[in-house]
Amino acid sequence: MAVDAGRTGRPTLAVVGATGAVGTVMLQILSHRADIWGEIRLLASPRSAGRKLAVRGEQVEVTALSEESFDGVDVAMFDVPDEVAERWAPVAAAKGAVVVDNSGAFRMDPEVPLVVPEVNPHAARNRPRGIVANPNCTTLSMIVALGALHAEFGLRELVASSYQAVSGAGRAGVETLRQQIALVAGTELGTTPGDVRRAVGDNTGPFPEPVALNVVPWAGSLRADGWSSEEMKVRDETRKILGLPKLPVAVTCVRVPVVTAHSLTLHARFEGEVTVAKAREIIATAPGVVLFDDPGAGEFPTPADVVGTDPTWVGRVRRALDDPTALELFVCGDNLRKGAALNAAQIAELVVAGA
Amino acid sequence: MAVDAGRTGRPTLAVVGATGAVGTVMLQILSHRADIWGEIRLLASPRSAGRKLAVRGEQVEVTALSEESFDGVDVAMFDVPDEVAERWAPVAAAKGAVVVDNSGAFRMDPEVPLVVPEVNPHAARNRPRGIVANPNCTTLSMIVALGALHAEFGLRELVASSYQAVSGAGRAGVETLRQQIALVAGTELGTTPGDVRRAVGDNTGPFPEPVALNVVPWAGSLRADGWSSEEMKVRDETRKILGLPKLPVAVTCVRVPVVTAHSLTLHARFEGEVTVAKAREIIATAPGVVLFDDPGAGEFPTPADVVGTDPTWVGRVRRALDDPTALELFVCGDNLRKGAALNAAQIAELVVAGA
Repeated sequence: MAVDAGRTGRPTLAVVGATGAVGTVMLQILSHRADIWGEIRLLASPRSAGRKLAVRGEQVEVTALSEESFDGVDVAMFDVPDEVAERWAPVAAAKGAVVVDNSGAFRMDPEVPLVVPEVNPHAARNRPRGIVANPNCTTLSMIVALGALHAEFGLRELVASSYQAVSGAGRAGVETLRQQIALVAGTELGTTPGDVRRAVGDNTGPFPEPVALNVVPWAGSLRADGWSSEEMKVRDETRKILGLPKLPVAVTCVRVPVVTAHSLTLHARFEGEVTVAKAREIIATAPGVVLFDDPGAGEFPTPADVVGTDPTWVGRVRRALDDPTALELFVCGDNLRKGAALNAAQIAELVVAGA
Repeated sequence: MAVDAGRTGRPTLAVVGATGAVGTVMLQILSHRADIWGEIRLLASPRSAGRKLAVRGEQVEVTALSEESFDGVDVAMFDVPDEVAERWAPVAAAKGAVVVDNSGAFRMDPEVPLVVPEVNPHAARNRPRGIVANPNCTTLSMIVALGALHAEFGLRELVASSYQAVSGAGRAGVETLRQQIALVAGTELGTTPGDVRRAVGDNTGPFPEPVALNVVPWAGSLRADGWSSEEMKVRDETRKILGLPKLPVAVTCVRVPVVTAHSLTLHARFEGEVTVAKAREIIATAPGVVLFDDPGAGEFPTPADVVGTDPTWVGRVRRALDDPTALELFVCGDNLRKGAALNAAQIAELVVAGA
């Protein structure tokens, strides 16, 4: 594409929602990746205006979101609630910015591409609304590995279960887990019905049940037939990104007491017979994916080890014992980095490169 | 069967491994269920001999395991490591006791029935070695619900992922999690690679990685082709209990920072079309199973709520969106109760009843 060059000869970037959990990680990522940007403008709600945040080693003042915020902006990355994105992304696009949106507002819009640069970079070129959508963090925590295997083997069916970190629910999720951990530390809780719930009281934050010493089989809001919105996102987005609109996908999403890094178990069935040797080779060589799989030596990814890193980590690679076309995998990725900010930054770079 | 009546006119029960995590729960269960036993004899290693434990409101002294321990015993429940069971279960059986063994030593022996009283009670009658095996806790945490659905619909395939509590690894597992929780409480840990691991140091107890603020995709020991022993147990035992020796089963077992109560996600494919209405009816009426499934009202089982209870709790009942023969479920059960001690107590009662 041809983005306007900013006054430094480089494109101008706006970060909308700069003060949130993902926004904070975005500023770290922008500070560490190869710097292609001219001005980086930080935008947030009026409540956060005036705060100064560090990006590229400089303190930058946050300004309140307004129509004028997008004057001269080439790329605008949004990490805000759906309804804020619905209102403001078209405003930014009308001003000529390419919007990279991390909300759920536009992901399934047929006129908005849903992009994972390692999987479907070409999709970013066709953006009639001027908006490119960033997938949900749970989808992103598995899709790079799954996409690489699909490219070789041809995916026919996916059964996935998630182990989702609390930071997927934002700063409030992290704060809630930390407060609950403090309440259960040094106790004998977790041994009688409801004892954790009584100790936690109303302090469940964004979650329907306590998450400390617990797992909660729910994320998002209620959809038809008992499915959660998070489960539907994983299904719909996987189909769209892989270009497989009829792919059978069955997902159950479960919240676990982990701060950051989502994990998933995958049962992936392919068009023909697969081998573990070939699957390992694909995973070991695919961009953005790391094979970490030697259980005899204690090697398999866990959230505590992959948090803060960029790739999707893959371990426990096995062929189903009763189906030579299916693989079992355990994948793990930082839901704030590749699961949100990093993928958005990669999309923005792709847009600027005109790829 | 005809068990010898004890001196009170009732059968004598020996509890071998009375001081362990499961043994402790066993004594609680024996104290609360209808009391069919004469003498209850508590046996353990010489190290624990002389301790007094409460059962049925009385203090009973633990004696050291020896050949004479089984004189006059009608039923001997074992909860000890595999190698101890291998050595002592045949001794007890040779003395005329029916052994109910909770180790993995005999479960796949074709001459040893593997029994879940709600699912295959008839199997307990045929025990040529005088031993009845109690399934693994992970199998038991799902099999009552799965068995009920199988009886109606005919199971054709199972994909399962576990969320296993630390007490599945015994007292050391619980102690390890509690110590780790104390180390991470009040910190910002869980946000940089390896920070939890460094804080925990060598204090990982029976687990290969930290479990606090983490999930660990490993349980048991290494088997062929990268499978864990726990995963193989779930597959082999499910097939044996349901009488489906060729059932395709794909399992990934994951440890989570929960004290007690295992959870699993199940993708279960049946012989023909299923309906959620019929599945809910089966689950709601099957013995030993509770339907707890109204996500709009915040109702789904979690470990913190089902710990300390007897049934298998089932929620998140959905039909696969792309396969009218498959159901998605989230099941949750106390791994020390139905997952171990309760099922063994039920088997012992079945044996005494001669059913």
